[in-house]
Amino acid sequence: MNSDNTKNIKPNITLIGSGPGDIELITVKGLNALKKADVILYDSLVNLDLLDYAPIAKKIFVGKRKGFKAYSQEEINQLLVDSALKFGNAIRLKGGDSFVFGRGFEEVLHAEKYNIPTEVIPGISSSISVPALAGIPVTHRALSNSFYVISATLADGKINPEIQKTTELNGTVVILMGLSKLNEIVEIYQKNGKVNSKIALISNGSLPNQEVISGEIASIKAIYEKNPVPSPAVIVIGEVVGLLREQEEKFHSKLVLSGTLN
Amino acid sequence: MNSDNTKNIKPNITLIGSGPGDIELITVKGLNALKKADVILYDSLVNLDLLDYAPIAKKIFVGKRKGFKAYSQEEINQLLVDSALKFGNAIRLKGGDSFVFGRGFEEVLHAEKYNIPTEVIPGISSSISVPALAGIPVTHRALSNSFYVISATLADGKINPEIQKTTELNGTVVILMGLSKLNEIVEIYQKNGKVNSKIALISNGSLPNQEVISGEIASIKAIYEKNPVPSPAVIVIGEVVGLLREQEEKFHSKLVLSGTLN
Repeated sequence: MNSDNTKNIKPNITLIGSGPGDIELITVKGLNALKKADVILYDSLVNLDLLDYAPIAKKIFVGKRKGFKAYSQEEINQLLVDSALKFGNAIRLKGGDSFVFGRGFEEVLHAEKYNIPTEVIPGISSSISVPALAGIPVTHRALSNSFYVISATLADGKINPEIQKTTELNGTVVILMGLSKLNEIVEIYQKNGKVNSKIALISNGSLPNQEVISGEIASIKAIYEKNPVPSPAVIVIGEVVGLLREQEEKFHSKLVLSGTLN
Repeated sequence: MNSDNTKNIKPNITLIGSGPGDIELITVKGLNALKKADVILYDSLVNLDLLDYAPIAKKIFVGKRKGFKAYSQEEINQLLVDSALKFGNAIRLKGGDSFVFGRGFEEVLHAEKYNIPTEVIPGISSSISVPALAGIPVTHRALSNSFYVISATLADGKINPEIQKTTELNGTVVILMGLSKLNEIVEIYQKNGKVNSKIALISNGSLPNQEVISGEIASIKAIYEKNPVPSPAVIVIGEVVGLLREQEEKFHSKLVLSGTLN
């Protein structure tokens, strides 16, 4: 119960990954836990229709959005603890999976300091599912027997230096939070002689407004300038991008633009 | 309807990833699609309780298990097409996610040759969720800003040579199908001077009989010999393994053994 009184409050924290955006891509376990929420702290990448499944719960938006207070991670950690202590069953609802660049484990560690029980319910990670729903399997026999998932941007806003190493891998490379670093990523791949590596940019993956553009390292900047797909976007580099075809209906893509520039 | 007659059969194929084992870790979309099955082709890593949600559907086991016919991938591709043509709504139910070493895209490509519509419903991949449910986040601020997922064993049974490159990565390395290659993996890491890399083996992840052992590259073989956890197991290598603690209740682990050998 959403209640301000203090009787019988049993603080409890559950981290739920809500998946890439399509509301039905939350797990059964995640949805069941959400329905029992007394309070929900949610991010900007969460499908807002999910909140309707907890009509009585207090909802607190802690994502980054114009006109809203921007919470630091430390503030979110504390707000989550305070919410559990005050209301009982606190849900931390995130896009994707809580442990894939979601900083969820920091929230678990903070809750432990207060001896508040925590549970983690995995979510469908955008890193695998967004390429899949656009028609790109991260692994495919003879093309890719591994995949590397990397955040392009570090906490200080700089590019992740580890991207340099991805140019030497044979498997698929999936880059999250990379749209604003596209020029730098292309430059790193070019410097390492990977001008012909196949690359795709997938915006709003899994949603009706999904958009995909693809090409090669040598051409993608020009393709993107013509068709500047919006954030959030997942970048995929590797041979498996060649499996992408025009298949709007099957994979729910609004727009698929592919090919090299002439 | 499960029917042998030919009236109004509209062939359709849906690939569903059922997650790491816990029945509730299937997505809402996956469960809804499963309920409409006329026929289900399922693997050995699928939680069999899921089949109860499609009581009328014909069920065909196509995994590898003693006493059952071992299907080749080509036979499964064709059986899936034939099942859709004969029964209508054919579901391909796999453990984890269909595109993470699941060979799902081969099934999609084969179905397309017959103009059978296909849909792919992502699943919770063991590569991320099994470590998470054992208390190991694949990413964690300041410890890991990337993770690499690799199959230890190639189609021909040999070790994946790409494992060599994982010794040079700063992020988390997640190795699937690697238990039978543990000695070779340890040897590769030792040869590359990574004797102190932290490593964990997680068996039956997400299930009540989950078991976890951990140590360092230098010690894990001896720890494993003392406590030979069974297949299937996920191997995690990296600094994030150090976040693992004895937390049986929270993360549903039956047994957590950790530490270096004396």
